[in-house]
Amino acid sequence: MFEPNFDASEYDARLAKTRTAMAESGFDVLVVGDPANINYLTGYNAWSFYTPQVLIIPAAGDLVFYTREVDASGAVMTTRLSESQVRAFPERYVHQPDCHPMDWIAADMMEKDLGRGTVAVEMDTAYYTVRAHKSLENGLPGATIVSAQELVNWVRSVKSDLEIAKMRTAGKIMTNVMTTALDFIEPGVRQCDAVAEIYATAVRGLPDAGGDFTAIVPMIPTGPGTGIPHLTWSDKPFKQGEATVLELGACYERYHSPLARTIFLGQPPERLVSTADIVSEGMEAALAAVRPGVLAEDVERAWRDVISRYGLTKATRIGYSIGVGYPPDWGERTISLRPGDKTALVPNMTFHMILGMWMDGWGYELSESFVVTETGHERFASVPWGLTVK
Amino acid sequence: MFEPNFDASEYDARLAKTRTAMAESGFDVLVVGDPANINYLTGYNAWSFYTPQVLIIPAAGDLVFYTREVDASGAVMTTRLSESQVRAFPERYVHQPDCHPMDWIAADMMEKDLGRGTVAVEMDTAYYTVRAHKSLENGLPGATIVSAQELVNWVRSVKSDLEIAKMRTAGKIMTNVMTTALDFIEPGVRQCDAVAEIYATAVRGLPDAGGDFTAIVPMIPTGPGTGIPHLTWSDKPFKQGEATVLELGACYERYHSPLARTIFLGQPPERLVSTADIVSEGMEAALAAVRPGVLAEDVERAWRDVISRYGLTKATRIGYSIGVGYPPDWGERTISLRPGDKTALVPNMTFHMILGMWMDGWGYELSESFVVTETGHERFASVPWGLTVK
Repeated sequence: MFEPNFDASEYDARLAKTRTAMAESGFDVLVVGDPANINYLTGYNAWSFYTPQVLIIPAAGDLVFYTREVDASGAVMTTRLSESQVRAFPERYVHQPDCHPMDWIAADMMEKDLGRGTVAVEMDTAYYTVRAHKSLENGLPGATIVSAQELVNWVRSVKSDLEIAKMRTAGKIMTNVMTTALDFIEPGVRQCDAVAEIYATAVRGLPDAGGDFTAIVPMIPTGPGTGIPHLTWSDKPFKQGEATVLELGACYERYHSPLARTIFLGQPPERLVSTADIVSEGMEAALAAVRPGVLAEDVERAWRDVISRYGLTKATRIGYSIGVGYPPDWGERTISLRPGDKTALVPNMTFHMILGMWMDGWGYELSESFVVTETGHERFASVPWGLTVK
Repeated sequence: MFEPNFDASEYDARLAKTRTAMAESGFDVLVVGDPANINYLTGYNAWSFYTPQVLIIPAAGDLVFYTREVDASGAVMTTRLSESQVRAFPERYVHQPDCHPMDWIAADMMEKDLGRGTVAVEMDTAYYTVRAHKSLENGLPGATIVSAQELVNWVRSVKSDLEIAKMRTAGKIMTNVMTTALDFIEPGVRQCDAVAEIYATAVRGLPDAGGDFTAIVPMIPTGPGTGIPHLTWSDKPFKQGEATVLELGACYERYHSPLARTIFLGQPPERLVSTADIVSEGMEAALAAVRPGVLAEDVERAWRDVISRYGLTKATRIGYSIGVGYPPDWGERTISLRPGDKTALVPNMTFHMILGMWMDGWGYELSESFVVTETGHERFASVPWGLTVK
């Protein structure tokens, strides 16, 4: 009933890659705090990351997962970790001013001989706090504590075929979600009612593949808000004569395929129509540039070459690596499609290419999620490009 | 169109309380990283916290909000912060291995004379990372950097009447959400389809008050999963002869009123029926203990006195302060209803009292969100207690 989403061999391969990267960096122990990385390495999936939890990866030997007492049995039940591999800090450590769960965890790591040598820690991840880290530093006095940077995230950046299959499923759900949203939005309809349809479609998923929560909530800035990328929604109605940008996600077994489109209710202004056309041309050029061996920055250049011919510029990156995600982000924080990123693309890397043009009080977005194939790319969703006008 | 949810006087009062607490602690500058605290103090509400953002509160003078370049205009448009109060780190700092947005922010703080004296930082909040903090420490060499602990969270713990009104609205939405969920769950219905109804009802909200995203996603452990509190859902069907625990939330303008209930499909086992009865009796006793002047631990004792008569124990706290929330938590990380918490209740404190009995392979939950009144308490939602059997 609670099987992880992949066979043991898949998780074994991921761990082996992680340990190879650890060895290359000279890490004796890796402390993983990002829930997406924990899910990737163990299959663990629960909303338990609001109290501290870390996965400890020694260079050799058993992984150890530290979590809260009430969550420990769930970790055993839903992963292949054994009871002895799941260690629970006592309940009394939760949300206290004078002690922290990481005090207990560090002491336990010392007992298990996991607190010496070079201990690499994920230092730029959301739920591993400054206070947690201070407790770890105090509790492991013999260790050399260094930043792990995005070691596991980089391992994640090239997917297995099994992972690509999950993302294809998420893409199918995404197609339904965006189609539903574009159908539902009309003048006078409340924004929240459209988002209700979006959520319901995303979570219902497909007949043979239910949807999961997305790492980012629906973002549907409307009217003057379309000049800003990250507004969510209100209970005000959509208005005739206004645009709405939809940056939405779909998730299947924690794998994401996001998608962005733009809709205008009424007769769109010329600047929006022409921007939409230019962005489609830029999308075509950028996607055409995608193939193994091409650098991330080359993909962006193909886009920039198009828009600069029309006198447009875009300061922000045009895409980033995607996959497993938990709030606050479905991005992997590794590869960005932007000048200076010299990562060479390889098959089974996956990206969200998002062409967001945020102007002064208006804007336009078009995006695609795709996988790099042997010869080019394959899109996960299937929704027409261009401005939807109704 | 983009007015904050409260008048300026409400935000002024919050800031004044925060500054009083800062003065008592001897803080010259407060660095606020928790999106809930930022929302509380400014009204800012966007999904922009996946890149670094901090609100700087000097003991006197203008607040300064630091965020990403693409989000800056949104902060000006949706709050009462002026353009000069919103400072944007350049786009090139996003997700880079060799520089961090907080490098730029710290340098800018130095220029604005915000980097000296005792600088108190929220060190146990999600989204303010270890790496961000190291950049801040390096960038403010003249400052004495200390932990702010949960200073703003404590200011938030006693609500204004305007905030209570928002939570009452969230409670009304919550009543609809739970009623919908209990109606919809049947043997053979997929879990994800029930969650689709839950999301749609929560986000649709009321005719005059649309719902917002909740800080925690629906948690509906079912069957053997009911022994574990924080599992989410799958696409498997609910089964005849199994229980499902529903811990759900509703949110209105970022204010939460969560609620938990338990449903059994078929003839429930005697242990579940008797546990449900005991928990209802314990809930009644605990709520009856709530009034101004009573200590948080006294409320828990009233509960414990009841269940211990039946030979039951519960290691976890039975409740916590609630209000504004962003993922990962609608709790405020301040007051807990548990032994040792000697906080005296005062009117307009708000709690989620959650009586979760997590056993070996089975469990039961009953909860209420409520406000402390002059004479006792007022519940936000209105859903019958006890095990729902169908």
